[in-house]
Amino acid sequence: MVQYSDSHLDASFAALSDATRRAVLVQLGRSDASITDLAGKFHMTLTGMKKHVGVLERAALVTTEKSGRVRTCRLAMHALEEEAAWIERHRQLWSARFDELDNIVEHLKNKEKADARRKRR
Amino acid sequence: MVQYSDSHLDASFAALSDATRRAVLVQLGRSDASITDLAGKFHMTLTGMKKHVGVLERAALVTTEKSGRVRTCRLAMHALEEEAAWIERHRQLWSARFDELDNIVEHLKNKEKADARRKRR
Repeated sequence: MVQYSDSHLDASFAALSDATRRAVLVQLGRSDASITDLAGKFHMTLTGMKKHVGVLERAALVTTEKSGRVRTCRLAMHALEEEAAWIERHRQLWSARFDELDNIVEHLKNKEKADARRKRR
Repeated sequence: MVQYSDSHLDASFAALSDATRRAVLVQLGRSDASITDLAGKFHMTLTGMKKHVGVLERAALVTTEKSGRVRTCRLAMHALEEEAAWIERHRQLWSARFDELDNIVEHLKNKEKADARRKRR
């Protein structure tokens, strides 16, 4: 059972709300990279990229490790599991509710058609 | 095929980054509600709740309709579909990558054990 922590979800959805940070996650999903690599790839200053990586790290989506002068960024294990679980759980409930509404609408439409036929007779 | 729009995902993930807004979505998943109902349920001022609903509405997660003096809030159809698709797509890729790493680690461990056995002989 996945435990939702409000503050964790706050931090990770906020981290996901930026297109560059999402692209950094996608990139790290392909291979680990240093902050310098990432800054180069995204045409960004080192300082700018450090900020984005910091946001992703605080949201537990990325881990970093310093070796000498290079800080290597990795996708965190189990990244996005809680976020996916939260979204999926509610989508399923909602989709059940929309199906129910569809059924009611269908039922009302059929009833209307039957009434119209009855009147025509 | 789901189309990801960067600005749509920016807005919706930002909308999801607040525990109250997530709770409002869950509540609207159960039943439609007026802003006054929601403000009461979440012990919040009308102005505060209006702001939250505004953020959800701009992110296309909620629709509202005014009838007389009452504004009714509804969960938007297809809410969270793009967000779920984005997360699922990348989780699958990453999980495949982590499985690959697991296999390599397993392979190295087995090799180490075999080497140790060979030395002991």
